[in-house]
Amino acid sequence: MKNIDDLKIGIVGLGLMGGAFAISLRKSNKHLKILAYDIDNKVLELAKSKNIIDELFYDAGKMVPKCNIVFLCINPKDVLEFMDKWMESFSPGTIITDIGGCKRKIFEKMETTLRDDIDFIPGHPMAGNENSGFLHAEKCNFNGKNYILVPLKRNKPDNLNLLKQLIYSIGFKRITETTAEDHDNKIAFTSQLCHVIASALIDCEPNTEITKFGGGSFEDLTRIAMLNVSMWTELFIENNDYLVERIEQFESSLDKLKILIAESKSKTLSDILGNVRNRRITME
Amino acid sequence: MKNIDDLKIGIVGLGLMGGAFAISLRKSNKHLKILAYDIDNKVLELAKSKNIIDELFYDAGKMVPKCNIVFLCINPKDVLEFMDKWMESFSPGTIITDIGGCKRKIFEKMETTLRDDIDFIPGHPMAGNENSGFLHAEKCNFNGKNYILVPLKRNKPDNLNLLKQLIYSIGFKRITETTAEDHDNKIAFTSQLCHVIASALIDCEPNTEITKFGGGSFEDLTRIAMLNVSMWTELFIENNDYLVERIEQFESSLDKLKILIAESKSKTLSDILGNVRNRRITME
Repeated sequence: MKNIDDLKIGIVGLGLMGGAFAISLRKSNKHLKILAYDIDNKVLELAKSKNIIDELFYDAGKMVPKCNIVFLCINPKDVLEFMDKWMESFSPGTIITDIGGCKRKIFEKMETTLRDDIDFIPGHPMAGNENSGFLHAEKCNFNGKNYILVPLKRNKPDNLNLLKQLIYSIGFKRITETTAEDHDNKIAFTSQLCHVIASALIDCEPNTEITKFGGGSFEDLTRIAMLNVSMWTELFIENNDYLVERIEQFESSLDKLKILIAESKSKTLSDILGNVRNRRITME
Repeated sequence: MKNIDDLKIGIVGLGLMGGAFAISLRKSNKHLKILAYDIDNKVLELAKSKNIIDELFYDAGKMVPKCNIVFLCINPKDVLEFMDKWMESFSPGTIITDIGGCKRKIFEKMETTLRDDIDFIPGHPMAGNENSGFLHAEKCNFNGKNYILVPLKRNKPDNLNLLKQLIYSIGFKRITETTAEDHDNKIAFTSQLCHVIASALIDCEPNTEITKFGGGSFEDLTRIAMLNVSMWTELFIENNDYLVERIEQFESSLDKLKILIAESKSKTLSDILGNVRNRRITME
């Protein structure tokens, strides 16, 4: 297995997550080399001038062959396009990973079309926030966060281990390995459903002055409504089978509570709220 | 108008909010005197030993006549009971205020039954959190928070001004004066609906291990599910006419988004998410 210090890591897309990877890798690993490609030259030049990356590329095709590991930090739909376009450019042995929020499509495609001598390990760092763009990357901290990996059957154990070592080195506290189905089902709940709820909360109330009556709950529940619109539209629709199930699962509990509240059933309501409170405490 | 420095302020109930009032008053106003009553003697003695209060009372009836201002930091239903029980004990000119999350009932009752020579100003500091009890009071910060006042027609302008001066002195940034109807309607949205949503999110998913897939959104949306069960059951039911309307208003937006997602209507969906994002940004 390769040593982390000797790696050349390529980052495709220096946005919020790509930028945060570069910054975290730079801080935690003094010797590895960080290469980066982005469609925005200014962002590349800024990152280079701040010594966050070692080498910048205006052409992805020139960077790809030089890397041992490539992080594709671009929108999910661009990942397959990128792989199609540059499939022949990777050097043998290269490990590639993505950060997308839906895994079934990428998993299937990579299981069947990937070159035999390179390895693609689908991944999902659970570390985004409501911001986007490189300028916010510094505040996107990985410490203590979760990371999901969805290994292909063909992934080499050494490659998987190297990637995990790298992930832990930049602060993530827990890596969970699972299937693409399980990932998409659970992420539909913990992430996508929450974004839909936040958006519905803002959508349903026309009076923006209502925040005069805010005490923190509303603000906390709706912060993620400041989402990256194109990325989340894509995620919601790509995962819509699981997401719609999850919305309905939530609606059913919400309806149950609504009826108890409407009918002033305080004993049953307080029993449910007590259970909810206890279960949420164990989730901390 | 009285000078803040000369006031004797009585706090009834040294829980999360009562404790936070005592701590903030002590920090911001060196000269006023803080008196406190609680059903838990140990909490009173702890607060006295930490010099957070000047005088402790095991009997509310002995404290009440000594105060210029009384903060009733107890559950809403206990406020009316307290006022009934001690109505004759207040000294002439005393200002009384509460902190409850529903205002119509207390407003009506106080407009009609209050002694002529004392003043009750219903209030609602928007500064709670998911904790309860005096031991968490220190972390309950008022800086930059909202405060709602629901003045009775009979409140004296001088008394209202004194209370507002006191509220600003402990860190609150904005006081909004409104009617009991308007308060209950808007709080049903910004506060109670959010607590119902958080509870439904926890209620609907039996697998507590789902947090392995958490990236912050789920955690932020459900933190308030660790609520004070008896207080929130009471608030939900007391305000159930407005709250049920607010739940249905939210359900309608959620359903609209669900259908767009299910039908892969990406253009309409992304238009709505774009509007939501922009409106949420102006709400900051």
